Amino acid sequence: MVRRIDFITFATEDLDAARRFYVDGLDWTPLLDVAGEIIFFQSAPGQVLGLFDARKFDEDLPRGVGDASSRTRVSGVTLAHNVGSRGEVVGVVDAMRRAGGTVRTAPEDGAFGGVFHAHVEDPVGIVWEIAHNPGWHVDADGNVELG
Amino acid sequence: MVRRIDFITFATEDLDAARRFYVDGLDWTPLLDVAGEIIFFQSAPGQVLGLFDARKFDEDLPRGVGDASSRTRVSGVTLAHNVGSRGEVVGVVDAMRRAGGTVRTAPEDGAFGGVFHAHVEDPVGIVWEIAHNPGWHVDADGNVELG
Repeated sequence: MVRRIDFITFATEDLDAARRFYVDGLDWTPLLDVAGEIIFFQSAPGQVLGLFDARKFDEDLPRGVGDASSRTRVSGVTLAHNVGSRGEVVGVVDAMRRAGGTVRTAPEDGAFGGVFHAHVEDPVGIVWEIAHNPGWHVDADGNVELG
Repeated sequence: MVRRIDFITFATEDLDAARRFYVDGLDWTPLLDVAGEIIFFQSAPGQVLGLFDARKFDEDLPRGVGDASSRTRVSGVTLAHNVGSRGEVVGVVDAMRRAGGTVRTAPEDGAFGGVFHAHVEDPVGIVWEIAHNPGWHVDADGNVELG
């Protein structure tokens, strides 16, 4: 199996709230927006982020466990967006807060690697780490170097 | 905020099981492997997938809800890996099963778009959709076209 993620798809309880946050608040352009079903954004070269109505997510992937009357919630995953400086971390976190995000960790020094970061939760439960990470580099071919 | 995911990080209850699946079973090369802490793989141009020990994930991002004695589990998210034909879907699903994955949906026609797909869960709870999706194209610059 080739090592490549083509889509990342999240169960989304309120697609309209997600649209207000990402499209209206953060000025992201959707790749495709099907009201009541799914919103797609490009998230990396060749890769798509999908916000998928939670009812349809559960139809697509029956859980077989838990309370069938409740919808799947997002848990156990974070997305990171890296920026070029500590000041940019503060600026992006402010922009996400104004767009309707909830700051869970205000910008602070991380535990290792000289990272300066914050955590912001979007209106549908997806947690973003906004980080300045001096140990992270991407070369012109898209190869990531860490440390 | 620029529309770009740099890291996707999952809470991982058993890093050794994850390593056996991805590295030994699927022959993926880690970008960095810190035993007992985290395994990083490149997952797209410029992007990293992190499998992060669930105890450390919870220290990094306190939940403030739920049972503190249990670790965060992955929920509400799927990753997709697209292949070039229906036959390749079957082949990748077989390889994932042999590596220790659990087939949750055997290869079948999807609900729309001519998709042929299956769902396989890895040993730590991450669900992969393996798909042949004729409506998905990526151009030479990494721009995705849907439909």
